[in-house]
Amino acid sequence: MKIYDWHTGPYPARVRIALAEKNLQSRVRSVSVDLWKGEHKQSEHLARNYSGTLPVLELDDGTFLAECTAITEYLDALDGAPILTGTTALEKGMIHMMSKRAELELLDAISVYFHHATPGLGPEVELYQNAEWGLRQRDKAIKGMHYFDGVLRKQPFIAGDAFSMADITVIGGLIFASLVDLKVPAECDALLAWHARMQQRPSVQNWVAMSEPLQAAA
Amino acid sequence: MKIYDWHTGPYPARVRIALAEKNLQSRVRSVSVDLWKGEHKQSEHLARNYSGTLPVLELDDGTFLAECTAITEYLDALDGAPILTGTTALEKGMIHMMSKRAELELLDAISVYFHHATPGLGPEVELYQNAEWGLRQRDKAIKGMHYFDGVLRKQPFIAGDAFSMADITVIGGLIFASLVDLKVPAECDALLAWHARMQQRPSVQNWVAMSEPLQAAA
Repeated sequence: MKIYDWHTGPYPARVRIALAEKNLQSRVRSVSVDLWKGEHKQSEHLARNYSGTLPVLELDDGTFLAECTAITEYLDALDGAPILTGTTALEKGMIHMMSKRAELELLDAISVYFHHATPGLGPEVELYQNAEWGLRQRDKAIKGMHYFDGVLRKQPFIAGDAFSMADITVIGGLIFASLVDLKVPAECDALLAWHARMQQRPSVQNWVAMSEPLQAAA
Repeated sequence: MKIYDWHTGPYPARVRIALAEKNLQSRVRSVSVDLWKGEHKQSEHLARNYSGTLPVLELDDGTFLAECTAITEYLDALDGAPILTGTTALEKGMIHMMSKRAELELLDAISVYFHHATPGLGPEVELYQNAEWGLRQRDKAIKGMHYFDGVLRKQPFIAGDAFSMADITVIGGLIFASLVDLKVPAECDALLAWHARMQQRPSVQNWVAMSEPLQAAA
């Protein structure tokens, strides 16, 4: 399989972490799509993914799978032993709810902030910006950090008692927060403690090790 | 179980259709949360769902499940015989990708258009509007209709050869489009033919029968 991604991208990080959790890295070759050159918005990539986002997984038969949740569902089901997306109805429901909530209230909000209220990927790529909308999304993300802090005061992981796709989505959110210098409020100590624990997971460590600060490639 | 929803809401429609497809209607009691009074943004509902959206499923033990995709995953897994979310890895991946794409490119885009570039739910509920952003989302939704038309020229259902959650999400998108008077372009004949076929499904017929035009309750 091939994974079209970019080494510093927070969304690609979600799939890289999922691949590592599933021990599937050796089955996937990474192909860079340069975000800073806007390659993800060009026709070659749009043919892979109509929405023009990363990452995209290409299966050996040429099928393209986009969207982190969809790719994670696929990878997690490959061996018939899901560890990221749940096995019971309740686990599936909770994991999907919390992962979607982490997108809405944290990761996607920070992405909109980055692309709309900061220089983003630069004037060649950011052809339309709506700064007011972007700033509101930044505020939403900070509020989201407080929400997830509250969740983690009651349970060890984002969707309950076990690590899941929902934790990966929040990790993606905090990767993006760090890249745009959006600090987790100091009073969110449960979120900060969880984040420190997450950094101990080999899947997360490896991702951090291979990434670089978010800046234009030389 | 209880489902907190509103009879004309396009997102609630997704779960009502899923309930009917799974033949689970008799196990769920519907509780109205009045969108036009902004009840979904009030503390009683925010305690059920941090994001303040409908629908929310309450399980018999008091657990709340929000987000249509998560609720559908839950309902579909209850009897161990999924018919909406796939059984193989590839089916799961494709269904989740296409359903998410239907949110991004159609349903959520129309929702943003409605709430930001039309009077939406009225001045008491729409406390912040960004019309420019809303109008861009309207344009994105029209483009999305062309995209899904192209998909349906090649295959009978949104995610492939079988009806799935992804079809329900596009149905939700077209319900919302109809409510805000956003016409499917006449040249999208594959999308229109698919939509006519979908109206023949009892799950969709029943929903349409119980809904009313999108307007303030008397």
